[in-house]
Amino acid sequence: MKHLTDIKSLSRSDIQQLIESTQIISQSSTKDTKTWHHGHSAVALFFENSTRTLTSFQLACQRLGIDITALNISHSSTQKGETIKDTLLTLDAMQTDLFIVRHQENHIHDQIIDWVSHDVGVINAGDGTNQHPTQGLLDLFTIWQHKQSFENLKVSIIGDIKHSRVANSLIDGLEIMNTKEIQLYGPDSLIPIDKSKLKADSMSSALNNADVVVMLRIQKERLPKGTNLDLEQWHQQYGLNNKNLKQAKPNAIVMHPGPMNRGVEITNEVADGPQSVILEQVKNGVLMRQAVIHHMLTKALN
Amino acid sequence: MKHLTDIKSLSRSDIQQLIESTQIISQSSTKDTKTWHHGHSAVALFFENSTRTLTSFQLACQRLGIDITALNISHSSTQKGETIKDTLLTLDAMQTDLFIVRHQENHIHDQIIDWVSHDVGVINAGDGTNQHPTQGLLDLFTIWQHKQSFENLKVSIIGDIKHSRVANSLIDGLEIMNTKEIQLYGPDSLIPIDKSKLKADSMSSALNNADVVVMLRIQKERLPKGTNLDLEQWHQQYGLNNKNLKQAKPNAIVMHPGPMNRGVEITNEVADGPQSVILEQVKNGVLMRQAVIHHMLTKALN
Amino acid sequence: MKHLTDIKSLSRSDIQQLIESTQIISQSSTKDTKTWHHGHSAVALFFENSTRTLTSFQLACQRLGIDITALNISHSSTQKGETIKDTLLTLDAMQTDLFIVRHQENHIHDQIIDWVSHDVGVINAGDGTNQHPTQGLLDLFTIWQHKQSFENLKVSIIGDIKHSRVANSLIDGLEIMNTKEIQLYGPDSLIPIDKSKLKADSMSSALNNADVVVMLRIQKERLPKGTNLDLEQWHQQYGLNNKNLKQAKPNAIVMHPGPMNRGVEITNEVADGPQSVILEQVKNGVLMRQAVIHHMLTKALN
Repeated sequence: MKHLTDIKSLSRSDIQQLIESTQIISQSSTKDTKTWHHGHSAVALFFENSTRTLTSFQLACQRLGIDITALNISHSSTQKGETIKDTLLTLDAMQTDLFIVRHQENHIHDQIIDWVSHDVGVINAGDGTNQHPTQGLLDLFTIWQHKQSFENLKVSIIGDIKHSRVANSLIDGLEIMNTKEIQLYGPDSLIPIDKSKLKADSMSSALNNADVVVMLRIQKERLPKGTNLDLEQWHQQYGLNNKNLKQAKPNAIVMHPGPMNRGVEITNEVADGPQSVILEQVKNGVLMRQAVIHHMLTKALN
Repeated sequence: MKHLTDIKSLSRSDIQQLIESTQIISQSSTKDTKTWHHGHSAVALFFENSTRTLTSFQLACQRLGIDITALNISHSSTQKGETIKDTLLTLDAMQTDLFIVRHQENHIHDQIIDWVSHDVGVINAGDGTNQHPTQGLLDLFTIWQHKQSFENLKVSIIGDIKHSRVANSLIDGLEIMNTKEIQLYGPDSLIPIDKSKLKADSMSSALNNADVVVMLRIQKERLPKGTNLDLEQWHQQYGLNNKNLKQAKPNAIVMHPGPMNRGVEITNEVADGPQSVILEQVKNGVLMRQAVIHHMLTKALN
Repeated sequence: MKHLTDIKSLSRSDIQQLIESTQIISQSSTKDTKTWHHGHSAVALFFENSTRTLTSFQLACQRLGIDITALNISHSSTQKGETIKDTLLTLDAMQTDLFIVRHQENHIHDQIIDWVSHDVGVINAGDGTNQHPTQGLLDLFTIWQHKQSFENLKVSIIGDIKHSRVANSLIDGLEIMNTKEIQLYGPDSLIPIDKSKLKADSMSSALNNADVVVMLRIQKERLPKGTNLDLEQWHQQYGLNNKNLKQAKPNAIVMHPGPMNRGVEITNEVADGPQSVILEQVKNGVLMRQAVIHHMLTKALN
């Protein structure tokens, strides 16, 4: 694992190894892990704003002893007309060990990998509507913590699948892990054609007997212009509440990548209820990112 | 001292202990203090802009070996419609040890304490016009350095008391320390009703025989809309200059929380003169914040 | 070397020593250099936006074990009406060891040095159109790496010399190092009068037999208002391409401080070609800044 741009580049055993490392890190003291990569440095390049993901990566690096410099590129050198390639090459020349890049353009990390030095690792922290592999991995870890395996699970993912890089990475990861059944539900126009075989017929059939229910955030900014979004109607058709959650297995867990639109895709009672593992996902996010970075810098995987 | 949201939660002996710790820290080398909390992490959440206070907390954390991540929340996730509660819970799930929060809303820290985990400490870095307890403590430390006690002092605070969280925390702190006499002076409309018994009759009577003179910044942004502020007139009525300062004791000290409006509430000759301890306050701010954080993370007080 | 505000304050032997230190640092491990200044702290005050230079200084400090706090002052306390002097004095009172300041005003660092404490070092990270001494030093180091001496070199600098603090510092540095020949070329109005004796008659005569060719960025924001800049025409008259580069010596190196306007002052084929050392300059920037800071904090020079 020299880079992590797409969760599909990982094998089942790679993911199993990352899950085990995350588990070990969760039991280690920060004082200990801070010695692991003392002297390494990372640059986080966020062309899209983020609190949650950027902070998670910052804490992951700090807890591994890595110096991280966070750059909000949109506000600086691109204003002087510099291309993203020259920005990357410049930062690369400063001899960092790791680039963590979020960008609005799908697949841009394939180019980034071509540009940077041979000994630098690149992590995709989200590219357009394509992939968000560390989010997929932290979701897999969270499921594994609660269910210990994937091969007998029904996982249902509900909402705007089409514009969700979170859903893409999670679906790919679940398939790699041989998940028994993956169901997708949402408005027909928001289920990608290449995934239509996973489409559930109804909210009920998606929820019925599910072990894991993943609710997605409506991303108003990604919907086609002119979409007249009736939030109340969305909630009626695609929202999760205590009543319809009863259709899932009694020990089903409820996930959401955040930030939540409370009252729209999920009610407060579910978000804050006993089946919700939403804050565990956040906690696991830092731990899984530590594991990914640790493996990349020690060249332990592949 | 699990949290520090209001200086009134501290006893006289708590404050005495913090003063002693600040004194010890001022005599310790940074190389030494950096080992005290290695492995701890803090998140600074500033919903209001700040250079001075944020930098002071950042340096205080760094000098205790604490990794601090500063977030200007106004620019990021709240734009996606996330509530402050979900932002806090999310950051809390990332397992930091300390939240340092500045917010425009009075008393919001009481809610924040309810939301966060039991093992996390919360410091109020300023809430609306209510409290700014670390500023109050650094002011007390500065007075103590020069006067060694409070029980025989006359302290006068001059300016817009009503909108000043700095004044609130300092007045409360001075009362806890049994200060002999506290006098407030400013326009009638800017002295809070519940503090009217401390009101001086005139600038002269406020300054007369004072041991400590605290000048406040006119906060134009907090005055009622439509207030026609004549800066020259303000200076005539409520400004400190070398002439009226002579009414105070010869060894009186002059304080100001900064940033100063030079020529308005204070003249250059006083601000930069021999009785000014304004820059000592800044220096002591870092040291007192180190002491507060150290006590919170070691659970040393109460 | 208590401060570094102008490269002209350095002697030939100072620069020679900095070159040697940079060479040593380039061969040291970060794990090692991180122990050199553990416990020191720096504040970077950028009144002008920058990705490249600020990141370079941040990495240089981190790799010396120095805690660095970066402040974009334009966005905060100056909005409250605080003067730059009070901002500086406030930060100075927080007891940092080093100020790294970029400002749009020429010669402002002379005042800054007067304001700050005796034991604080000040580095000029760019002042208006005047000086950018660490850029000049990294350029000298890059030339030295390739040519091992200056006394038999012809160095040509091409573009808008008049508004370039990079050119100013480099020309001064080359003169200190007894460079055999320095030629400047660009539009007559963009060659400063006091440097007119270095002016080349034509692009050909500037390039002819040059050992080092330094291309400058057109800084549209610094040109007089109303300047009608024809980029195509600029490229024809003052641009470097594979064809006219042939006039220089076969082993000539091509430099550019970045960010580049590709296709204007330099073509892609040259910028990315075998004679380009542009990314080496970036790499050397971090190393030279480590050397400068190390010398300042250890008071090793003069």
